[in-house]
Amino acid sequence: MTTRYFHDADGELLIVPQHGRLHIATEFGVLDVEPQEIAVIPRGVRFRVALAEGAARGYVCENYGAHLRLPDLGVMGSNGLAHPRDFLTPVAAYEDAEGHFEMVAKFQGRLWKAPIGHSPLDVVAWHGSGAPYKYDLRQFNVMGSISYDHPDPSINLVLHAPSSTPGVDTLDFAVFAPRVLAMQDTFRPPWFHRNIAGEFMGLVHGVYDAKAEGFLPGGASLHNPMIGHGPDAGTFEKASTRDTSQPDYVKDTMAIMFETPVMIQTTRFALESPQRQRQYHECWMGITKHFDPARR
Amino acid sequence: MTTRYFHDADGELLIVPQHGRLHIATEFGVLDVEPQEIAVIPRGVRFRVALAEGAARGYVCENYGAHLRLPDLGVMGSNGLAHPRDFLTPVAAYEDAEGHFEMVAKFQGRLWKAPIGHSPLDVVAWHGSGAPYKYDLRQFNVMGSISYDHPDPSINLVLHAPSSTPGVDTLDFAVFAPRVLAMQDTFRPPWFHRNIAGEFMGLVHGVYDAKAEGFLPGGASLHNPMIGHGPDAGTFEKASTRDTSQPDYVKDTMAIMFETPVMIQTTRFALESPQRQRQYHECWMGITKHFDPARR
Amino acid sequence: MTTRYFHDADGELLIVPQHGRLHIATEFGVLDVEPQEIAVIPRGVRFRVALAEGAARGYVCENYGAHLRLPDLGVMGSNGLAHPRDFLTPVAAYEDAEGHFEMVAKFQGRLWKAPIGHSPLDVVAWHGSGAPYKYDLRQFNVMGSISYDHPDPSINLVLHAPSSTPGVDTLDFAVFAPRVLAMQDTFRPPWFHRNIAGEFMGLVHGVYDAKAEGFLPGGASLHNPMIGHGPDAGTFEKASTRDTSQPDYVKDTMAIMFETPVMIQTTRFALESPQRQRQYHECWMGITKHFDPARR
Amino acid sequence: MTTRYFHDADGELLIVPQHGRLHIATEFGVLDVEPQEIAVIPRGVRFRVALAEGAARGYVCENYGAHLRLPDLGVMGSNGLAHPRDFLTPVAAYEDAEGHFEMVAKFQGRLWKAPIGHSPLDVVAWHGSGAPYKYDLRQFNVMGSISYDHPDPSINLVLHAPSSTPGVDTLDFAVFAPRVLAMQDTFRPPWFHRNIAGEFMGLVHGVYDAKAEGFLPGGASLHNPMIGHGPDAGTFEKASTRDTSQPDYVKDTMAIMFETPVMIQTTRFALESPQRQRQYHECWMGITKHFDPARR
Amino acid sequence: MTTRYFHDADGELLIVPQHGRLHIATEFGVLDVEPQEIAVIPRGVRFRVALAEGAARGYVCENYGAHLRLPDLGVMGSNGLAHPRDFLTPVAAYEDAEGHFEMVAKFQGRLWKAPIGHSPLDVVAWHGSGAPYKYDLRQFNVMGSISYDHPDPSINLVLHAPSSTPGVDTLDFAVFAPRVLAMQDTFRPPWFHRNIAGEFMGLVHGVYDAKAEGFLPGGASLHNPMIGHGPDAGTFEKASTRDTSQPDYVKDTMAIMFETPVMIQTTRFALESPQRQRQYHECWMGITKHFDPARR
Amino acid sequence: MTTRYFHDADGELLIVPQHGRLHIATEFGVLDVEPQEIAVIPRGVRFRVALAEGAARGYVCENYGAHLRLPDLGVMGSNGLAHPRDFLTPVAAYEDAEGHFEMVAKFQGRLWKAPIGHSPLDVVAWHGSGAPYKYDLRQFNVMGSISYDHPDPSINLVLHAPSSTPGVDTLDFAVFAPRVLAMQDTFRPPWFHRNIAGEFMGLVHGVYDAKAEGFLPGGASLHNPMIGHGPDAGTFEKASTRDTSQPDYVKDTMAIMFETPVMIQTTRFALESPQRQRQYHECWMGITKHFDPARR
Repeated sequence: MTTRYFHDADGELLIVPQHGRLHIATEFGVLDVEPQEIAVIPRGVRFRVALAEGAARGYVCENYGAHLRLPDLGVMGSNGLAHPRDFLTPVAAYEDAEGHFEMVAKFQGRLWKAPIGHSPLDVVAWHGSGAPYKYDLRQFNVMGSISYDHPDPSINLVLHAPSSTPGVDTLDFAVFAPRVLAMQDTFRPPWFHRNIAGEFMGLVHGVYDAKAEGFLPGGASLHNPMIGHGPDAGTFEKASTRDTSQPDYVKDTMAIMFETPVMIQTTRFALESPQRQRQYHECWMGITKHFDPARR
Repeated sequence: MTTRYFHDADGELLIVPQHGRLHIATEFGVLDVEPQEIAVIPRGVRFRVALAEGAARGYVCENYGAHLRLPDLGVMGSNGLAHPRDFLTPVAAYEDAEGHFEMVAKFQGRLWKAPIGHSPLDVVAWHGSGAPYKYDLRQFNVMGSISYDHPDPSINLVLHAPSSTPGVDTLDFAVFAPRVLAMQDTFRPPWFHRNIAGEFMGLVHGVYDAKAEGFLPGGASLHNPMIGHGPDAGTFEKASTRDTSQPDYVKDTMAIMFETPVMIQTTRFALESPQRQRQYHECWMGITKHFDPARR
Repeated sequence: MTTRYFHDADGELLIVPQHGRLHIATEFGVLDVEPQEIAVIPRGVRFRVALAEGAARGYVCENYGAHLRLPDLGVMGSNGLAHPRDFLTPVAAYEDAEGHFEMVAKFQGRLWKAPIGHSPLDVVAWHGSGAPYKYDLRQFNVMGSISYDHPDPSINLVLHAPSSTPGVDTLDFAVFAPRVLAMQDTFRPPWFHRNIAGEFMGLVHGVYDAKAEGFLPGGASLHNPMIGHGPDAGTFEKASTRDTSQPDYVKDTMAIMFETPVMIQTTRFALESPQRQRQYHECWMGITKHFDPARR
Repeated sequence: MTTRYFHDADGELLIVPQHGRLHIATEFGVLDVEPQEIAVIPRGVRFRVALAEGAARGYVCENYGAHLRLPDLGVMGSNGLAHPRDFLTPVAAYEDAEGHFEMVAKFQGRLWKAPIGHSPLDVVAWHGSGAPYKYDLRQFNVMGSISYDHPDPSINLVLHAPSSTPGVDTLDFAVFAPRVLAMQDTFRPPWFHRNIAGEFMGLVHGVYDAKAEGFLPGGASLHNPMIGHGPDAGTFEKASTRDTSQPDYVKDTMAIMFETPVMIQTTRFALESPQRQRQYHECWMGITKHFDPARR
Repeated sequence: MTTRYFHDADGELLIVPQHGRLHIATEFGVLDVEPQEIAVIPRGVRFRVALAEGAARGYVCENYGAHLRLPDLGVMGSNGLAHPRDFLTPVAAYEDAEGHFEMVAKFQGRLWKAPIGHSPLDVVAWHGSGAPYKYDLRQFNVMGSISYDHPDPSINLVLHAPSSTPGVDTLDFAVFAPRVLAMQDTFRPPWFHRNIAGEFMGLVHGVYDAKAEGFLPGGASLHNPMIGHGPDAGTFEKASTRDTSQPDYVKDTMAIMFETPVMIQTTRFALESPQRQRQYHECWMGITKHFDPARR
Repeated sequence: MTTRYFHDADGELLIVPQHGRLHIATEFGVLDVEPQEIAVIPRGVRFRVALAEGAARGYVCENYGAHLRLPDLGVMGSNGLAHPRDFLTPVAAYEDAEGHFEMVAKFQGRLWKAPIGHSPLDVVAWHGSGAPYKYDLRQFNVMGSISYDHPDPSINLVLHAPSSTPGVDTLDFAVFAPRVLAMQDTFRPPWFHRNIAGEFMGLVHGVYDAKAEGFLPGGASLHNPMIGHGPDAGTFEKASTRDTSQPDYVKDTMAIMFETPVMIQTTRFALESPQRQRQYHECWMGITKHFDPARR
């Protein structure tokens, strides 16, 4: 993509590389982004991506709602989760190049292209607040229960696109980063739940603690609204009998989640892919009934 | 106080017994409250207190602001801190008694009394939402860092009286309950700080983890706005060299804090009390300078 | 529907039985609902309905907006219209049954089914605030003019789904319950109007006071946005000459209204039904011109 | 007051004449106000009052809060209570007069005077929204229960000065105008209550329906916050046995109320006045106990 | 259109005549509107238009959002831009006519017609706030920089339809009226920009100052979201070398803009029209590169 | 002030030097501030001031309200008035000094002092948002009318301390900087007015355009709420006959205003000062009556 430039006129792009570093040259300067980091490119900003390692893989979310921003932390106070000072904006950099280039645009759900005789990354200086930025997920200051119970996954929120209804987001971007699970007398994995929002999960690095087997880095799961889900049978059994007087140190992991009340449609490509896990629901089949009415 | 009744026409009462159980008979029914529990009596509600053990001691905060209420949990989600279902409201109970009683009122900062020929607790039934209630602080679902850093004390909020300015409370009631400190590479006690709000602390039970010595149950400390404070010298030294790869299980404690941007005035009685700790500031005198400019 | 269960993944269900009692077994417990009562089943909640009298008829509204809730009463104060304490939530109840059942879901506007080997109503206990509930419309505390003029129909609001624009609701559920019309020097029926919201009306019980003839219990009328409507000719003539020094006691009635700014589409089934009243507009044809310019 | 002018630099004046018409000449024009009408003079506006009948008597409230304004009607809809179109603003009128006049100002709680060589009412034309206005209380569109129960007095709100806390007003101005009490199975007078706000009541015209005797036009009552009050013994007994199948037509009355959470202090003049009703509390002494525990 | 009446059930109409006066007879009375004036007809209001000069041309915007209203002026204070007192509402006027008329309605994006036996403009009197109105754009009180820099075009806002997200409007109606450009050391025309909202511009009168040639009165330009645009090459060169120590008096102009984040679709009629300017983008082709890296 | 340090526990300090440069060493680093610049020191921050020229003079405002902040620009758009990027925060700097120092604090309206054995400016690094800052008033991007009329002075707002009531500020800080007055057919100086807020004005540099004589740099004027004021007689006569077809270039000036609805009390020192201008009101005495009723 050295002679092609792109911009998305429809929405903001949240880029989560999982494999391979990205060199993203934008009108505002350059972002070098590696796995376990993320980049956000505002709507309409022209950019070009070079693959530092020849190949790359990851997750991209196109946000049609409000600009992604940090959540208000509320009772959590002035520190915690993602800190404003860890979001990095590029220093101005420009290309003064003429030649045969191609400008590709996403506009109204379609891709359009046009020749352009010079690099559009010809911005010499800038000021303002609508710039691209990057963030290292390993900086995430994870909060959680330090007494009992497993809190809501919203406590892992990195960025969100709030709607005009307080408490309802068009898009939530959450991360499940390394952390200490020290709560006592508690089932420590995520609980079983149905959600008003759909959940698209990905694994950037390591293992995911609610799937004892089967979630590989680069994989993804999708649970649309009101589809019940939770830990698989193995995780359930193990967590149900765990002695919680000792902490679990969850290391070597970085899972991400895009959560949205809008229905997520899969493409035909995804549905027909050989990678699609057609027996996914079987991961819960081993869960057995423990209820004994005589013990009421 | 068997023939005297009281009401506070000026504000709501937040009662935190530290020693001795309270039997609080109100117009709405009876609250039995023991240490590590709290009671809230709305403005204007008539009540009578009997001491189950003959004596009692504790903290009372008179709230002139909005009704105390649970904070919005924001990103923390739908569970955590004090749960709504743990606040208990009395079942209606009445006294059908005639005799020589005394009604005492606090009105405009003064106490007034009048004889009354019958018990004012003669309400046979009620509905509505302005009732007294109690809460057991041991139910508090403590949240905190499970990665690194020490979050703001607001994460320990039980109830607050919000002002009309978002984020500014007339009164915060926080609790420092038993919890697990598992964050790593971190100074785990509260940091040194100056605060826009004053802090009145009390210890209901056990020990307080930021004072290696000298905070007895039933004691109190007061730091008015912009008065710097933090752990004492002993706590500082110990925490600075603590190996944080292991958690601290903070047990056997229940400290409370009333926090308010309004200046708290001490009474002459308090200032002249033999219990007043006149050398309080010396607890920080042992803190020594560690800065070495050569190490810059 | 004894071996089939249902849930609606798309929205909340507001059920208004008009004929025949409903036994609604849900994950949260059982609601027995009879005509002149309503039930609300939250989005995604599994339930099963048994017809106590073998047959049933009524109105169901699927709400895609915010959860239905009680309106703020504003100047009306702390009492009036539907009282919070009259909304009843079920006590937990469960089914511990295995067998051949069918789970039907409404998801993205379509119905889906799957076999299930046990009853999904296997929730033994619950807490939280997202439960089903019922309300008896006969408890509605009707407010109105006690001097002159006919107030807006919004004064009959039971529940609403507010949008994020103050004053604009996605769905209003209003009831026209028994009441006293005592305002003087006033045309007492609803006035003629065009509305920014569409109005779907039903009659649960008795007669409707703005239609001298022709509105039978179980019937329905639909006026989409900006379609003018009002009392029929007979009602108009009668009300225009009514002596208003005496009150009208409107008894033996229970009409309901779903009001929404979203356009309501009729199904082909409804349009082709023999019950469809094709000459509905003729009810206004008898209204004659009373204007005499000479009387200006 | 023909050569004296006045303005109040501290607040807005709400003038409620009870006896005698007022000719109020202001910088914006003339307001002629008679009993059962009110006038509002904004803060800082110069004016002069002439007494059309040589004498006048009434109530004046000085509002230190937000400008008085009409309440949002909420569920009540777009009509009801005081209608915007009934508030009358003067047509511009000026005085082109030189001579020896006196300007009196209320500023910071004190009165100040200065000579002035010309009439300050020399404004020839104006535009804007900060003008004085009048309103006829007989236009008030009274709303109330038309089924059962007695609603909150806030339903009688004419104007209010909202604070920055939603639902809390610095000043409420309510009117108890002629109306029909038709609610059934209900105690129709105001109930007994303690209020977070103090209530200053006056009677402009006729009789007041919660005081069977003793409230004369021009009189006033004051109940500060948390002072319980309600109908007198005679009213209580009568209303308790009233057959409510027939309406009460409350005619020939116009009572007003200033309600505020700020404590209202009486002057020494008022406390020592021979008109002060020192045995006011005896109006409730005749209320007898009706409770019979055997009937539980 | 003397025997045809129209109403738009889908939205509010903002009418901007460019050539020929309009006589708009509505249910609320008559609006006579000439070029450089605008009219707004609320959703659902019946009206009839007569062309005073036999022909007329202009721009019409159908607003599906909130009612158009004046913006809050914020720091600009209580005066500036369009003044409330310059918006004129008709005096009631009616037609008492019977005959063969046609009622045309726009409903759900389609046109419908029906015969009607009398004029629907038979409203003899009215009160309320939902009436049509007109405004003379020549009254617009233009604000701008009086020091340096070119402010955002939002400073030219006449009316807007705010969404429920603060700062985001469904529709902005701006005007570029005669004004003085006196800012110094500044490129005075509008800057080059891409916009989150699309811009539809029209020219009602005179010339437009950012297009040295080619924008005729009655013409229109459309730049949808994220399509970069700005002054043409000639305007750019001239403004870049302008001595800004003297003001520019921009006279003899009246350009308007409809701005909306919703995508504006052109009709096939517009796309195939011979008036369509197919080489529009060439107006920027003459802009040459001025950047000299040696001058860094 | 080389061995004395100060902090204000009661409020934030807005420092406006008028003569002499200030070297302000704070816990966050150093601010060098010269006349026509301002500095803001947050509540509770320790600092020390050195006078670069041996002497200094200016204005200081103590803000007890919300933190000073930039106003939302509303319709003015994303640029104008004071730009965020022109506010400068210090780079961390520390003093590693021991010795005999004095710490002075303002607390609850009084000054307190204590010896301190080391410099309190011993902060080696910091992050967060509560830091001191400076701003150069000459950067102010002045907006105003570019057609007709004189806008409200709020258009000159630099910083404000908003209250919890929208539109009401506890403190406004405005600047009257060099600008072009080009509006036509208009009285160009500020109009005569009475204000709900008091106005304290100072002149930092040059001349003030509404006082033809008598406002010297370093002087101050005070008009408390509802005290009418405006241009002096000379300014009035001159502006009334000004040909407005040409602009006025207002150069060589920098006036500032503190505006607050709180009453500003003068000290006895100020009242008794020989600099007090006791005949200030005479500046308006020369204004003569121009009204001729025969010209109506």
